[in-house]
Order: sequence, then C-alpha cells, then structure tokens
Amino acid sequence: MYSVTVRDHFMIAHSFKGDVFGPAQRLHGATYVVDVEFRRPSLDANNIVVDIGLASEVLRATLGELNFRNLDDLPAFAGVNTTTEFLARVVFDRIVGAIDRGELGPGATDIQTIRVTLHESHVASASFEGSVANAS
Amino acid sequence: MYSVTVRDHFMIAHSFKGDVFGPAQRLHGATYVVDVEFRRPSLDANNIVVDIGLASEVLRATLGELNFRNLDDLPAFAGVNTTTEFLARVVFDRIVGAIDRGELGPGATDIQTIRVTLHESHVASASFEGSVANAS
Amino acid sequence: MYSVTVRDHFMIAHSFKGDVFGPAQRLHGATYVVDVEFRRPSLDANNIVVDIGLASEVLRATLGELNFRNLDDLPAFAGVNTTTEFLARVVFDRIVGAIDRGELGPGATDIQTIRVTLHESHVASASFEGSVANAS
Amino acid sequence: MYSVTVRDHFMIAHSFKGDVFGPAQRLHGATYVVDVEFRRPSLDANNIVVDIGLASEVLRATLGELNFRNLDDLPAFAGVNTTTEFLARVVFDRIVGAIDRGELGPGATDIQTIRVTLHESHVASASFEGSVANAS
Amino acid sequence: MYSVTVRDHFMIAHSFKGDVFGPAQRLHGATYVVDVEFRRPSLDANNIVVDIGLASEVLRATLGELNFRNLDDLPAFAGVNTTTEFLARVVFDRIVGAIDRGELGPGATDIQTIRVTLHESHVASASFEGSVANAS
Amino acid sequence: MYSVTVRDHFMIAHSFKGDVFGPAQRLHGATYVVDVEFRRPSLDANNIVVDIGLASEVLRATLGELNFRNLDDLPAFAGVNTTTEFLARVVFDRIVGAIDRGELGPGATDIQTIRVTLHESHVASASFEGSVANAS
Repeated sequence: MYSVTVRDHFMIAHSFKGDVFGPAQRLHGATYVVDVEFRRPSLDANNIVVDIGLASEVLRATLGELNFRNLDDLPAFAGVNTTTEFLARVVFDRIVGAIDRGELGPGATDIQTIRVTLHESHVASASFEGSVANAS
Repeated sequence: MYSVTVRDHFMIAHSFKGDVFGPAQRLHGATYVVDVEFRRPSLDANNIVVDIGLASEVLRATLGELNFRNLDDLPAFAGVNTTTEFLARVVFDRIVGAIDRGELGPGATDIQTIRVTLHESHVASASFEGSVANAS
Repeated sequence: MYSVTVRDHFMIAHSFKGDVFGPAQRLHGATYVVDVEFRRPSLDANNIVVDIGLASEVLRATLGELNFRNLDDLPAFAGVNTTTEFLARVVFDRIVGAIDRGELGPGATDIQTIRVTLHESHVASASFEGSVANAS
Repeated sequence: MYSVTVRDHFMIAHSFKGDVFGPAQRLHGATYVVDVEFRRPSLDANNIVVDIGLASEVLRATLGELNFRNLDDLPAFAGVNTTTEFLARVVFDRIVGAIDRGELGPGATDIQTIRVTLHESHVASASFEGSVANAS
Repeated sequence: MYSVTVRDHFMIAHSFKGDVFGPAQRLHGATYVVDVEFRRPSLDANNIVVDIGLASEVLRATLGELNFRNLDDLPAFAGVNTTTEFLARVVFDRIVGAIDRGELGPGATDIQTIRVTLHESHVASASFEGSVANAS
Repeated sequence: MYSVTVRDHFMIAHSFKGDVFGPAQRLHGATYVVDVEFRRPSLDANNIVVDIGLASEVLRATLGELNFRNLDDLPAFAGVNTTTEFLARVVFDRIVGAIDRGELGPGATDIQTIRVTLHESHVASASFEGSVANAS
C-alpha cells in the first residue's frame, strides 16, 4: 500500500458540554495541526498517489472553512461537541467530498482509504481513518 | 476507525543479556517518550474515544511504576531483556488492565485496539499494537 | 552560560482588534506549546540551573491561570491584543514573579535571564527574552 | 503486533516528467528523512523484533547507494518519475533484499511486513507498506 | 527582546567544489525547512513584532525564487558553494531587502535583528543572524 | 554570525545525590539527543562554518565515550551530579578539546562560540554555551 501525507493547520474557538470535559466546558480554543494521509494499492502513470499540489490546496480550502471561527456559532455543529476526534471525521468527510467533486484530479478516485490526524498539542492528537467509499 | 493518542515519558536504567546487544549489555539507560493510541469504531455520546484526562492520568500512573528505576532490579523483569519492544508490550498490558479495572471510565470498554509506541531517541522507536480483548 | 528548558501547553480563545489581523479579528483560539528557558552563568552546589520539578510545577500553575479561558473575558487583558508575542511577555512576567516569591526555590535568584517561547502552530512561534531583574 | 523503527536520511537531485508536477519538472532536489518500520507478531529469544544495529547499518547502506546522486543519471531509474512514493517502494524492495541475503541476521526472516516512510519536508511525506513475502 | 518566527521550505539541486565536501561534490539536492526569526525590543501599537501574514508571504516569495531550481545554473551563485550556511545568509539578505522595500509593512523598520535557520535534515542545520542595518 | 548545528545521541545510567532530585536519586537513565552549534562571524574559503563531516564524527566519538555507560562508575564523574546541564558542559569541553587537537580541521580555530544542548525528553532540555577560548 502506498500513501502520501500532507500537513496544514487551523485555529478555532469552541466549548464542550458534559462533565467529562471539566474546564474544557468553558469557551477556549485550539490550534490543530492536520495530517491527511491518502492511500491506494498502486501508483498512477505518473508514479504518484495523488497530485500533492491539489491535495495541499484542497486541505487548505477545507481547513479555511473552519479557520479563525468559533465553532459554537456554526450551524453545522449546533448541539454537538466538536472534539478533536469529531473534527477529524469532519475533515475526512470534506476531503472525501472534494474527491467526489473531482477537486483532487481524476486519478484520485483510486484512493481507497484516508487517515486524518489532528494534533492539538505536543502531547495529544486524534484521528479518523476510513474507506473513501464509506464516507458519510 | 477513530483514535485518540496521548504522550508522556519515563526514564530508566537497565542492561541486556546476549551478544546481539553489543555495548548495550553494559548497564545504561534511556528516556522513553511514550505514545498510547486508543481506537474504537464509533464515538460515545460525548463525541469522544476516551476521557483524555483519565487517559493521561492512567498513562502517567502506569509509567510512574517504572520511572526512575533500574529495571534490572525489578522482580517483574527478572531474567528478561527489557528491550524497547518488550516494554511497549508491558505498557500495553498495564493500560489494558486499567481499562479492565474501570480506570478509564465505563465507556472505555468500547476501545478495541491500542497501540503503544516508545521513542528511545530521535532515530529509533518500537511499538506493540493489539486487541484489548487479547491482552495477556 | 548554562540553561534549562521546560515545556508545557495551554489552550485559549481570543480575538484581535485591528485590520492587520484580517480574519483573526474573529473570535478564534490557539494551542500554545510553551518553552521556558532559565539561564545563569554557573551551576549551584547540586549542579543544576533550577529545580526542574519546581520549574515544571510553576509553569503548569502559570499556564493554568490562562488555560481553557476566553482571554477576551479576562480583566487583566481588557483592551489589549493578546498576541502570541504579548502572551510570551505575560508568561515571562509571571515566571519572574514566581521566582521573586521563592516558588522556584532559594537558588533560583541566581537566574539571570529567561526566554519564553510560545509555539502557536508547526509554522509559527513568538518569544520574549529578558533579564529577571528587568521584569515589569 | 510488535514493531521497531529506525531513521536515517539521504539527499538527491532529480526532475519529473508530466504537467502534473508543475515547477518540479525542473531539476531540483530533496532531503528524504526515512523511517523504516519492521513488524512481526512475536519477539525472538532475545526479546527483539530485529537487531537494531544491523537494521541501522542496512538502512545506511541502502540509502548510501542513492545519497548525493542525481537520480536522473542512474540507469535503474531511466524513464521513471522518482517521486517520493516511488522511492519509498525502492527502499522497501532493497530492505527486503537485504533480509533475503541475511544482512539483518537469521531471525529477520520472521519479519512479516515493513513500512517505509520518506519525509520530504515538514509538511509532506510518502510511504510504502507491504509484506516481506510480496516484495518485487 | 521580542521575536516572531515563521517557517516555510524549498527544494533545490546543487553541487559543491572542494575536497572537504567529499561525495557532496556530486550533483545532489536538499529540502531546506527555513525558520526566520524577527526581533525587536518593543511591540508596536497592535502588540505585534511583525505582520505575520506579510512575513509568511515574503518568506514564501523569497524561497520561491530558489524553489525547484538547480542552484548551479543560477548566475547569482556562479562560482560559489551554495552551502546551507551561505544560503541562510542569502535568505537573510533578501528578507532585509523586503523590509527595506516596505513589503513587511511600515512598522517592520523597527526590527533590529533577524535569524535565518535552514534545517537540511533531522540531524543538521545552519543559520545566519545579523542586524538589519548591517545587511549586505 | 553564522552557525552550523549537528545532532546525535547517547544513552546512559546514573543517579543523583541531594533531596532536590526526589526519585531521581535512584539509579535510572536517560537518552540525551545532543545538538552542537558551532558559531563564527564569517565563512571560510569553502563557504562553510566547519567541516560538517568532521563535526559529526567528532560528536559521535565524544558521545561514544559516554554511550552505554553507568556514569556513576566513571572516575571522571566521581562525587559529582551528572545532571543534564553538567553533561552539556562536559560535551562542550570535549568538543573544544577536539578543536584544539585539530580534529575538526585547521579552519575550526575560527569558531568563536559553541552551544551544546541535551534534550532529555520531549519536555525538558539543558544547554551550555561558551567561548571556545574560555573552555576549562
């Protein structure tokens, strides 16, 4: 299995609901450094997994929708806890959507699985990994 | 598949038996920077994989049993080479034990697999990954 | 010159005022991974720059006052832009205050300069470095 | 599953053919920081996955064949795009060859899979992962 | 003293002349991950050292002049060894030029010193640090 | 000012004397990832600060004298606490000795200052920085 991983970041505010979150129930924020790994069993005719330029642009655009936002104010996240693991899935779904819309190029349809990892500090991260075909 | 990873470290002395270890047969030591990744297929009602506060505490307590020790003196490791890969398994088993004892909260029983990685320097690491159900 | 550096982190929400900040004028947030470097020209009788245990505790307590907060709501920061460079100075001043109160031990008065660095992402950081004697 | 990972690097020049590569069609170069992860389900009698000294030597020798080269000039790569993902496979195949020749010691035949990751910058990497038995 | 640091990277081919370089006399290449630290004794009215958006754009443009090039072919570097330390100075001079041209904003003239660090691998880097007023 | 930095590591056992060290009074160990930065105001005729190949060899040899040792057993360290900051000075002095013996090449006598940093974990490091002329 081959893979290519690209990295970017975004910075948001949010708060959580539930005793399990302790002081994180207060409005606070985070920088998420995001790694997106694209996987497929064989390379295309150019010897690549994905056009890394397009992949970086799509990642930047995807994170740009969230960057410098208070997630508590976004209708898409009303009533949900925007935990790191949840946001990993959000980024996953949006990257899959971009593949479906052809934004990563025609060859990107051969990508089988994607793993999205959000690093929230030097000691904690979360990820979602799934099949491109199974995206919500 | 979702995952959450937490990081901590411990510092120990030990020695190895066997020609394959060369100068590491002498008493020496290591700092192990430890990543523990918890995985489960779906999130709980709070949108989390695991209570990251509890996970960090359990990791700290687990490593605390080994921290600032000469592993050659610990009865639990008598006659065994406490290599990085072996210690990754030790940490794995103890984290699974903590789950079984409820120390990561009731929802932690939905964790399916755990991967423990010990970084012993900027150029070497070892890991053990297994099913929570199969722990020794 | 000798130095010892300890690392911890905090997560906050805030917003900025001024066209120069562009979209960062919106309420957003950040994880700051913080390095505090303590410097002195000679070691104490124990061969240390500072009690690293106390230094870590003081750093944790200092960051704890800010952690999981919306800085826009804190009276101490009313009307100021809590930029990364400004916050580096805030942490510097509070660490110096802790030295003055003896919280880093009696030997910590020999520390001459401190450098505080806040990493806000994998591509940006800010710092403040100053003499302990000159702290505001 | 147990694993051990070792790291080294190499520095090369090359160019790519195909519009998808944009300015990378010009002769340029890269530093590749390489991680090789060796995996097997159980440890050997010494409690190791692989002799880490031999693994480091084999990795150094493998990368040494490519280091400080213009890949466009090497007959082995004539007419192919030596992308990061392609080079990950090249390193994989050569490490497997070293196992087959006994260069990682007799116990290395129990290694089941290998993952080779090439980091080309702080924001991009590629990898190839495969079964030792399936190497080309 | 306050500082702000931004990071970006570029990828080039080159060769060196002189026995001291050993195999690096052959045409090869490198990825340089570049940190540029801007320093000034006090913050401006916005509480910043430099407009980080402009600083990132200027860094990207500066590195863009070198990115995906064979430095041996550039007239600016004819007959010189484009070592990592030399390139750190080149980037320094060009950033200072951008300040002089007002590309980092009017307040950037208060920047006193700049440090440019080029990381060429996980085990080696080089830097140039100087006064903005003394740039060549 | 120009600089070049090289990195390597060593792994040792030791114990400390003094209540300030708490559990670190027990025999334990550490991995030290070591950065040595060489500084000089101008480059030599080859456009380098130091022969990076020689610098890496000297660092490896210097750390090799300590690697896989119990520092408590070495006569050179009898009765002293081999703290991270103390060891940074030890490495500094030995590197300066290597310069004096010509092991970094004849041009290395133009190196003015050296900074040695020992990273003992992902959250702590120590350094010693001094003039080459002032080494003990």
